[in-house]
Amino acid sequence: PKEEFSSLIVNAHETSVGHIYNLDSMGKYAKKHNMFFIVDAISMLVTDPLDMQASNIDVVIASSQKGLALPPGLTMVILSPKAIERLKDVDNLYFDFKDYLQNGERGQTPYTPAVTIMLQLEARLEQIARRGGVEQSIQSAKEIAEYFREAIKPLPLKHYSEYMPNAMTTLTPTDGKSAMEIVNDLEDRYKVMVCPNGGAQRDVIFRVSHMGEMTKEYTDVLIDALFDYYGVKR
Amino acid sequence: PKEEFSSLIVNAHETSVGHIYNLDSMGKYAKKHNMFFIVDAISMLVTDPLDMQASNIDVVIASSQKGLALPPGLTMVILSPKAIERLKDVDNLYFDFKDYLQNGERGQTPYTPAVTIMLQLEARLEQIARRGGVEQSIQSAKEIAEYFREAIKPLPLKHYSEYMPNAMTTLTPTDGKSAMEIVNDLEDRYKVMVCPNGGAQRDVIFRVSHMGEMTKEYTDVLIDALFDYYGVKR
Repeated sequence: PKEEFSSLIVNAHETSVGHIYNLDSMGKYAKKHNMFFIVDAISMLVTDPLDMQASNIDVVIASSQKGLALPPGLTMVILSPKAIERLKDVDNLYFDFKDYLQNGERGQTPYTPAVTIMLQLEARLEQIARRGGVEQSIQSAKEIAEYFREAIKPLPLKHYSEYMPNAMTTLTPTDGKSAMEIVNDLEDRYKVMVCPNGGAQRDVIFRVSHMGEMTKEYTDVLIDALFDYYGVKR
Repeated sequence: PKEEFSSLIVNAHETSVGHIYNLDSMGKYAKKHNMFFIVDAISMLVTDPLDMQASNIDVVIASSQKGLALPPGLTMVILSPKAIERLKDVDNLYFDFKDYLQNGERGQTPYTPAVTIMLQLEARLEQIARRGGVEQSIQSAKEIAEYFREAIKPLPLKHYSEYMPNAMTTLTPTDGKSAMEIVNDLEDRYKVMVCPNGGAQRDVIFRVSHMGEMTKEYTDVLIDALFDYYGVKR
């Protein structure tokens, strides 16, 4: 019964298969059932839309790697006013957000963080702002994702998920080739790296990122390599 | 009564005042009373001696900053065989060391660490090995600490602690000057930075580090500045 559950926690983008969830629907469901809505947005940050207010999100978990395209080492948690209110009843040594909020007022953290990556985060956020803000960043990822998906249509590769983010494209070979073999061949023959999958999916999926400093020019290098690999004229 | 305590946890070097503890004595005490002995060695690593076996230490907590002189962002925990044995009875989501040990066998961590700082750690450890190992690193810090302490004897500064590590020297003005004023003056007039203390000790102590890439030549820059500051001929 629903009253047993206090929270709904989801990763907005299932990075392993490139599937993005509908946060609006989930937020409506959480609100209807009076559940706390917590979203891990790590791999769709600044490439796909995220609106805490519109989607009734109480907590967003972010981190320096993936979407923000910085080295890993930092986790950021964004709290809604409702979440901050709820903290008042929580007493815990781990993740004592009250302590973080209190220290934040003097520009500090309770424990020593990865300071060098914080400086990189500051530079990255300034870069995004300089280029036109998060909306421009999302638009740019969207354009590159669509450009890539359109360009590779003649090749024997299909989308693995119907609900792909702008962050990346997940592809499955339709000619019986192994996905891992394609990943290795692209690296060996063209010095182009795409992301393999592990475990049961190793032969089924490979992933192409559109995050970070990705441009149409970089994407063309991969598209050209794929066309040459399949012996198809672009 | 002593049976209420299961562990003795200590930071080997009290960084805020530059006081190093006698780990041998503490280890003997812990062993006698059958207590688990946990040592935070962060700020005396590779500048001062640490011997888990000789001092009966069960767990050493290390980190990338301070003694190792790398950017902060990594915590390393070194477990004795006795500590690993004890882990078998512990079930916890946080700091699940079993999960770390298991992942370690395939060269991985259960969660994404600060990878860039791990690479820096590897380079730093190779540097220490290349220069003659940890013993040489300790010897070098010891020589620099002694060189500095001997050189500044003519100045109106006394040691704050009787038990100073090689890692740093903690000084208190004997002429009534404010320690914080000295810190600021050294930076303003000589572009030399030493470490101030906060809170109640701000006017009482300043700290000079001998950690990391510190050499006699660098130390001379500070010594010369201090002599000039006090108008004493070196």
